[in-house]
Amino acid sequence: MAKIFCTKTITESSFKSLEQKGHEIVTWDDLNKGPIDRQTLISSAKDCEGLITMLSDKIDEELLEQCPNLKVISQYAVGYNNIDTAATKKRGIVVTNTPDVLTHATAELAFALLISCARKIVQAAKNVEEDKWKGWEPKGFLGKSLKDTTVGIIGAGRIGSSFAKMCHGAFDSNILYYSRTKKPDLESDLDAKKADLKELLQNSDVISLHCPLSDETKLLLDKETLSYCKKDAIIINTARGEVINQDDLIELLEQGHFHSIGMDVTTPEPLPHSSKLKSFENVLIIPHIGSATETARKDMSDLVCKNIENVLENLSPLTPITY
Amino acid sequence: MAKIFCTKTITESSFKSLEQKGHEIVTWDDLNKGPIDRQTLISSAKDCEGLITMLSDKIDEELLEQCPNLKVISQYAVGYNNIDTAATKKRGIVVTNTPDVLTHATAELAFALLISCARKIVQAAKNVEEDKWKGWEPKGFLGKSLKDTTVGIIGAGRIGSSFAKMCHGAFDSNILYYSRTKKPDLESDLDAKKADLKELLQNSDVISLHCPLSDETKLLLDKETLSYCKKDAIIINTARGEVINQDDLIELLEQGHFHSIGMDVTTPEPLPHSSKLKSFENVLIIPHIGSATETARKDMSDLVCKNIENVLENLSPLTPITY
Repeated sequence: MAKIFCTKTITESSFKSLEQKGHEIVTWDDLNKGPIDRQTLISSAKDCEGLITMLSDKIDEELLEQCPNLKVISQYAVGYNNIDTAATKKRGIVVTNTPDVLTHATAELAFALLISCARKIVQAAKNVEEDKWKGWEPKGFLGKSLKDTTVGIIGAGRIGSSFAKMCHGAFDSNILYYSRTKKPDLESDLDAKKADLKELLQNSDVISLHCPLSDETKLLLDKETLSYCKKDAIIINTARGEVINQDDLIELLEQGHFHSIGMDVTTPEPLPHSSKLKSFENVLIIPHIGSATETARKDMSDLVCKNIENVLENLSPLTPITY
Repeated sequence: MAKIFCTKTITESSFKSLEQKGHEIVTWDDLNKGPIDRQTLISSAKDCEGLITMLSDKIDEELLEQCPNLKVISQYAVGYNNIDTAATKKRGIVVTNTPDVLTHATAELAFALLISCARKIVQAAKNVEEDKWKGWEPKGFLGKSLKDTTVGIIGAGRIGSSFAKMCHGAFDSNILYYSRTKKPDLESDLDAKKADLKELLQNSDVISLHCPLSDETKLLLDKETLSYCKKDAIIINTARGEVINQDDLIELLEQGHFHSIGMDVTTPEPLPHSSKLKSFENVLIIPHIGSATETARKDMSDLVCKNIENVLENLSPLTPITY
């Protein structure tokens, strides 16, 4: 009988199998008020064998030291840059994540941000809401058509590839991709072309980020690389805020660069009230909802629970991270 | 040398050829404050041979009687339900519209509305704007995935077909269509299936309107037909507000029907402040911006001018309406 601590309310029905096997699951939540505070996390986790964690929960040496029984950390996300994996590896703790099940939802969200930016949907809706709609205007809310655009994806894994397929299927977009490895499927299915970063940024009408956050990708888009972009490019970030140097982005926006920016992720999250990013009409920011569909969240919940269950039963988890 | 009156500011460069031939073009506008008032329209139009009109300009017997020189009405839209075509026909006035050039832009806008509704983009953006973003929430802004949905299009002309292609290409959607005529291209390219109205409404996850407004389509979706829809259907209207009985729609929304509604068109336009439609979180309304892309509006401007020019030179206009 293991104790499992979960730091946010997830789909309750997913706990059924663990509960039937006698495990005790405690869920913390302070609904819609934010992530668990550090002290509560540590004190709740310390006698647990399993943890279900969110991207906002910092899992580091200090915490792990106080959790001697911990066998498995089941991250409710595909990215796990909140977890010090050197420390978990040292202790032999299994870490799992939720790839695949959120691929379509996240790609779809990037696609939703793109088309909302291109066609000024949020500004247009606000115009109606605020009773500023006075009549039909030939020059009102002129957007950018996405037909036949060149779309550059940075990171060509599952999510990036799925996003590229949507752009290609809906808008006949030409696809460029920046990736360490060649992607034969993308090339054959979508006629995509591998490009170096500069070449991709210079030639893309739309740039969408789909890479994990790592030493290699941190601040990948900074003043220099952002300046390679077309002046009317659209940039979409559903990866991690830290891939973009946000101050550099703001500086370029102030100089009139970019058609628009769509961000599901920012630095930090939540974005502070005072952030200049909020002052641009052409910056659309949403609160990290990439995988937020009923289906994806249910599948994520099922997967985090199954991963814990398998580890507790000395079976292989379905989706461990590789150390 | 003809006099031409244009009721709103359109792309100025399109007038060049008419001006070079010595024609005089007068443009009225009251920027962003709404359409021309009736009296100004009549007094400005009365000595003109050509008129460039918007959907919001009522062209009827009373007006035409006062315009004895009128040869051509060049409508800056694809629909022309604002024009009494029996009256123009009787007088031998040529009426032209702007098909084709706005097909992609309008289909893309319907698509933007769809995906914004499905993924709650406007609500999510508002959450950030209003500083309500407190942290990452597993159950926040849960949307609906569009993957493999069944999409029913009402009206399978150019715009409807283009929209269907986007849904099929991006989400592998199954396509149903309601149309007077069979569409072999849609059936072979997208594996679309012709359906009667009831069958389409009962089986579609997404319903998108792409029909012109006519006696046949007016109030096509009313209490009875709307009640055939799945309870979590998404309805998108980029056609004309009057195709939906808005009071019936409101009644069903109050009863919890529909996942969400995306409307680029309403009854009337602009929608009055007091309209109940504005009170639903799941109704996204934008101010009739279907064809609002830089490219489409430039092409529309070129086409309305070329149509006038041809008629004035006794040539066939490029896109006359058929009487």
